[in-house]
Amino acid sequence: MSNQQPSWSPPTRTVEESVLKVYNSLTRTKTEFVPRNGRLVKWYNCGPTVYDASHMGHARNYVTQDILRRIMTDYFGYDVHFVMNITDIDDKIILRARQNHLFEKFRSETTSLTPALISEVHEAWANFVQSRVSKGVPENLKSVVGKEDEFWADLVIRVADKDWKLEALRREEKFEMYYTTADRSHSALASAGVRLQSGETGQDSALRLIDDSRDILAESLDQKFKASVTDPSISRSLAAYWEGQFFKDMSRLRVRDPDTLTRVTEYVPEIVTFVERIIQNGFGYEVDGSVYFDTKAFDSADQHFYAKLEPWSKGNRKLLEEGEGALTDASGRRSASDFALWKKSKLGEPEWPSPWGPGRPGWHIECSVMASAIFGDNMDIHSGGVDLAFPHHDNEMAQSEAYHNCAPWVNYFLHTGHLHIEGLKMSKSLKNFITIDEILQKYTPRQLRLAFLTQTWNAKVDFSESSMTGEVRNIEVTFNNFFAVVKALLLDADRIQSDGQHRYGEQERDLTNLLYDSQTAFRAALCDSFNTPGALDVLRDLVSRTNVYMNTSGKNMNLNVVENVARWVGKMLRMFGLGEGETSEVGWGQGQGEGESSVNREEILLPYLRTLSSFRDGVRRLAIAKGDTALKDILSLSDKLRDEDLVPLGVALDDQEDGKALVKLVHPSELIRAREEKRALVEAKAAKKAALVEAERQRKLQKLERGRVAPQDLFRPPNVPEGTYGSWSDDGLPLTDAEGKELSKNAGKKVQKDWAAQKKLHDEYLAWHREQGSS
Amino acid sequence: MSNQQPSWSPPTRTVEESVLKVYNSLTRTKTEFVPRNGRLVKWYNCGPTVYDASHMGHARNYVTQDILRRIMTDYFGYDVHFVMNITDIDDKIILRARQNHLFEKFRSETTSLTPALISEVHEAWANFVQSRVSKGVPENLKSVVGKEDEFWADLVIRVADKDWKLEALRREEKFEMYYTTADRSHSALASAGVRLQSGETGQDSALRLIDDSRDILAESLDQKFKASVTDPSISRSLAAYWEGQFFKDMSRLRVRDPDTLTRVTEYVPEIVTFVERIIQNGFGYEVDGSVYFDTKAFDSADQHFYAKLEPWSKGNRKLLEEGEGALTDASGRRSASDFALWKKSKLGEPEWPSPWGPGRPGWHIECSVMASAIFGDNMDIHSGGVDLAFPHHDNEMAQSEAYHNCAPWVNYFLHTGHLHIEGLKMSKSLKNFITIDEILQKYTPRQLRLAFLTQTWNAKVDFSESSMTGEVRNIEVTFNNFFAVVKALLLDADRIQSDGQHRYGEQERDLTNLLYDSQTAFRAALCDSFNTPGALDVLRDLVSRTNVYMNTSGKNMNLNVVENVARWVGKMLRMFGLGEGETSEVGWGQGQGEGESSVNREEILLPYLRTLSSFRDGVRRLAIAKGDTALKDILSLSDKLRDEDLVPLGVALDDQEDGKALVKLVHPSELIRAREEKRALVEAKAAKKAALVEAERQRKLQKLERGRVAPQDLFRPPNVPEGTYGSWSDDGLPLTDAEGKELSKNAGKKVQKDWAAQKKLHDEYLAWHREQGSS
Repeated sequence: MSNQQPSWSPPTRTVEESVLKVYNSLTRTKTEFVPRNGRLVKWYNCGPTVYDASHMGHARNYVTQDILRRIMTDYFGYDVHFVMNITDIDDKIILRARQNHLFEKFRSETTSLTPALISEVHEAWANFVQSRVSKGVPENLKSVVGKEDEFWADLVIRVADKDWKLEALRREEKFEMYYTTADRSHSALASAGVRLQSGETGQDSALRLIDDSRDILAESLDQKFKASVTDPSISRSLAAYWEGQFFKDMSRLRVRDPDTLTRVTEYVPEIVTFVERIIQNGFGYEVDGSVYFDTKAFDSADQHFYAKLEPWSKGNRKLLEEGEGALTDASGRRSASDFALWKKSKLGEPEWPSPWGPGRPGWHIECSVMASAIFGDNMDIHSGGVDLAFPHHDNEMAQSEAYHNCAPWVNYFLHTGHLHIEGLKMSKSLKNFITIDEILQKYTPRQLRLAFLTQTWNAKVDFSESSMTGEVRNIEVTFNNFFAVVKALLLDADRIQSDGQHRYGEQERDLTNLLYDSQTAFRAALCDSFNTPGALDVLRDLVSRTNVYMNTSGKNMNLNVVENVARWVGKMLRMFGLGEGETSEVGWGQGQGEGESSVNREEILLPYLRTLSSFRDGVRRLAIAKGDTALKDILSLSDKLRDEDLVPLGVALDDQEDGKALVKLVHPSELIRAREEKRALVEAKAAKKAALVEAERQRKLQKLERGRVAPQDLFRPPNVPEGTYGSWSDDGLPLTDAEGKELSKNAGKKVQKDWAAQKKLHDEYLAWHREQGSS
Repeated sequence: MSNQQPSWSPPTRTVEESVLKVYNSLTRTKTEFVPRNGRLVKWYNCGPTVYDASHMGHARNYVTQDILRRIMTDYFGYDVHFVMNITDIDDKIILRARQNHLFEKFRSETTSLTPALISEVHEAWANFVQSRVSKGVPENLKSVVGKEDEFWADLVIRVADKDWKLEALRREEKFEMYYTTADRSHSALASAGVRLQSGETGQDSALRLIDDSRDILAESLDQKFKASVTDPSISRSLAAYWEGQFFKDMSRLRVRDPDTLTRVTEYVPEIVTFVERIIQNGFGYEVDGSVYFDTKAFDSADQHFYAKLEPWSKGNRKLLEEGEGALTDASGRRSASDFALWKKSKLGEPEWPSPWGPGRPGWHIECSVMASAIFGDNMDIHSGGVDLAFPHHDNEMAQSEAYHNCAPWVNYFLHTGHLHIEGLKMSKSLKNFITIDEILQKYTPRQLRLAFLTQTWNAKVDFSESSMTGEVRNIEVTFNNFFAVVKALLLDADRIQSDGQHRYGEQERDLTNLLYDSQTAFRAALCDSFNTPGALDVLRDLVSRTNVYMNTSGKNMNLNVVENVARWVGKMLRMFGLGEGETSEVGWGQGQGEGESSVNREEILLPYLRTLSSFRDGVRRLAIAKGDTALKDILSLSDKLRDEDLVPLGVALDDQEDGKALVKLVHPSELIRAREEKRALVEAKAAKKAALVEAERQRKLQKLERGRVAPQDLFRPPNVPEGTYGSWSDDGLPLTDAEGKELSKNAGKKVQKDWAAQKKLHDEYLAWHREQGSS
């Protein structure tokens, strides 16, 4: 025998570990994910522009990003640093804030309905019709300047024609929305005219007109007075308000807060420095107080490439214009594809100092600067909605690579797919626009998240009522039922009790191996570019096969194997963010501090319930001691608390002899069952008592019935057979028998006794009869 | 400009990912951990033999295993299947259960103190002295048979000598424990003799003797009557009891339940089959109803090796004997290193049927069989305390490899190190034996776990008071203080408020990079064979440098960077099991179900509190409506609930006019303050009222005082100046003035009126005076 350890070699893998691949917009393929720095993942996600309520498009984007982030952090165990920006300088914010401000000012200064007011609103309406509504109308109807009212009369008739309206919508997507807005204002103008005629000229009357023309007036007021709006806090406070609302919505959707949040308003000096460097590096130029990025210069530089994500979109004017914003002047650029790094601010637009005069950052530059401030010249992942790919993300990368003179700035670009509603693009004009607040009144955050999980993160998602109430609901119910059954079985089982059987046979080995295989398949699905629909299918299949095991194994079921399945399935669902609160809090969390033990519902509730119960004890004690009938009400109130109010809350009060009820937390269904049983018992008792009473009544009736015959008739036919006796006294006592012979002494005594007994019965009968008659 | 995406290459790693290595007892080095099957880890851990309370040795072993398991599962993200056994067939269990049973039987059958009882106990005592105590005594004092009392008298004197006792302990480790046991029984015998003399022979008197000689009697009763104990449930119920206690202790220590638990009593038929196959394979042989493993045959087989873990211990007789158990007969084996696979059961020992006659499994075979049942012919990790390495684990591997004809059966063997207490091995005889129950009265589960985390899992741990109150306490306080400061700052900050500064400069970049580096270093430490002390150092260093940042950055502090540090540190501490409850529950967890939103204390409590409150409303309504004075008690009970009982629970009931109180959850301190203010207000009111009453009393007294003078004296000196009047009527009415002149008609009327008024006042005075006198 040797005294040295034998040689050892590492195990041979029978199943290779899956490797994470992600769909990378920079290659438009799935590529292996390689973080630069060990397990650290630097991740920048494009956040919202905050000027209105968040909608389903936001939900789709941010819930999906949250799912990816949770998979990276909680499943793959990366050390993720997730940075998100808030765009709080933007033309849409400036416009909305200014319009709101000017409209509210106008409204608060209006005191009465005047012809001047009506004509001002009419003018605004006419401008609106001309600039917006008429866009949807065929060329031959368009010349409306100065005759909007005629045009309108004509239009109202045509709009009733479905085909005509469809044609209008084809010309101008928002036609219907504009038409509705103008129509509302048109009616308001008509009725305001009537009110003016009839002398209803008070403030209320004026405000009705103003409020029904809000959008139209806001636009015309802005056109006239925008230059007067110079207080920068007007923009900032609108942004702050909607930022707050956005995070409230995200929290309701269980979207984790970013690790680091950056706001454009907090980075303006850094943006100026960044733009200066781009100019120095030869990729930017100033024109009349604005600075533009020189896409041609950049694209022709040796180490650079402009529009890596969508090179085919380089010349797309529509996309470029949208990217530049509504308040931007496109003139003066060297090339149509150049974009603003810095915009000169006109009067009525917020401004910051710069070497090029007062102005504000362009849209794309913010992300370059803020992400660089946190991550420097490289990040592992950049993510955002697919509609941001060009020009926003392409410009952002170009700027950063121009600044750092690096390539690439972003290693993996992940774009979440579009959202459609019932097959159509979501838009206010299509009337299928849904805010997060609205959708959460209809579905739980879990159902929404499940809906997104059943779709690939980078595919176009079609959100439809039928899938929510069909597939999504089915999935939820499948898991619900499974967990409910397993929990119930676990509550039933006592872990220490053993009947000497291990119950780990062929079937259990199969189910355990299925669990192992599911874990491998689940990992493979998530490694395949976060294939969450595939991963969910793995879980559903495992659950359904576990259900089969439970249904077929009967009393030989090995609950432990089932429990292992249920625990893993639950853990994975929670990993997706489908359950349980955040665990990313600061501190130890609960459970092991000085004097604490693990906190659960019971521990939270019991002190309160004990107080409740002892109050009830006191009330009962008093009510019983006083013996007053008035106090009966208190006792029954006390019983109602026990038997009705507390039952659905899962609280059992067991009254004890010492007057102190025992407080127990039990599942409501158990209590309801116990109450039903008790009720059935009481009813059974009552029924038995009623039967006894009835029997007693019958017995009494029979006895009374025996007294129906008067004693005088007792010994006469038909009460005795014809010819039993020969003669009777006046009272009907037999004197002689049929043969006329006097009754013997004994017989005489007997008939007298019987007569007296019958008399008593008959008297009782008569009394009862009288009673019956009178009642 | 190109319209094709540029080529992309995967990022170049600047920091390589750490690879997990574990200290493997099969190589006695750190080797890279390679699971056979993707990310699945099959892990078997040796569980306890359940016959007594769990102690610090168990805590050391199972908490440490729990830490390793959490790191594998929650940090590295392996899919771990953790199996643990319960040894519920064992010589120690059989002995303990039989002795308990026989002692309790003897005790319950004893009714009085008799000379026979005394002599029986004395005999047991004498046997104990001879077989146990005398082992510690030098050879020349040892011949005690038949003269134990003289020996004892001699011993008692010698034991007082410290050096002598040290010598005795060197000979017999448990000498002091045995001596104490015998001494207690000796005294009990003496005083029982006195009681017998004085006629105190009742049952109480007998039980005093029996209870003070418990261990001694249990041993002698077992020797005499063991064969009579044949009910198998006697062993089983002892094991079940201590299994229950073990898991209670584990749960208090926050040790997660195993995924799968196996009990030997549930696997006996499988054990028999397993042993049969070992015999068939040529590695086992039967001798007289027992079956032994043939270590020589196994070790000389080509593909096998006996005692891979500790080949140098192969011949160690002491270890082998301990492994075989107290009830085992070693005769009949082919080699001294052979060990029992199956033991023939003697009378008084539980038995199961087998081809070799009734018997029970050997110790080592259970783990081979149960782990094979779940995992088959290979597992990734086997773990257990280092004292089990030889012979238990070596025999276990030999058996399984003999059965499966495989090698190796275990890929990685992890052994947790020994535990010492204040530098010494823990043992009952050294009086440093600490149960888990005892240690938890002194330290929290978190402090204990921290103590183990500061030591390497496979090193010898010295548990000392000074390290618990020193280093361990310091670490806890460091984290506590850090979390408290960060939480306080976060509560102060409003995330939406922005002053336009981003606060992400040089210092913040440094701290963020320190966080990244710490994450890398933390991972490297855990990859270095779970180096938890190193990992904790990383966290402590990060915290201390973050504290420096907080202290020096002043109002320019970027709280978000600090928050990121605090969140990650907290997450890692919780990962170690230092905080927060289990998340391995079944189901979704809380938070997103139908109608639920994020669950907090308020949402759990409010339905109950509303019920409580509306019951109170009802009681108050009744009490007020009835107006009965008897019902006042109910009202005051109701007020007590609001003002006393619910205040410390943080529940405010605001009584409303409609009789329905508003229920609010408020911090108790706020409620107490409000109650104090209310009380102060009531007291101030009462004081004001008391002052009014006192003023009224004074006014009344003054009025009464005016009536002190009788009307007869009103017009006489000293009540009027001397010489005001000349003469008076009998009633004291003045008749003439000083000059004797009769009073004018008017003056006469006035004095009459004054007299009458004074009469009234004086009567009142007299009445009050009488009242005062009588009270």
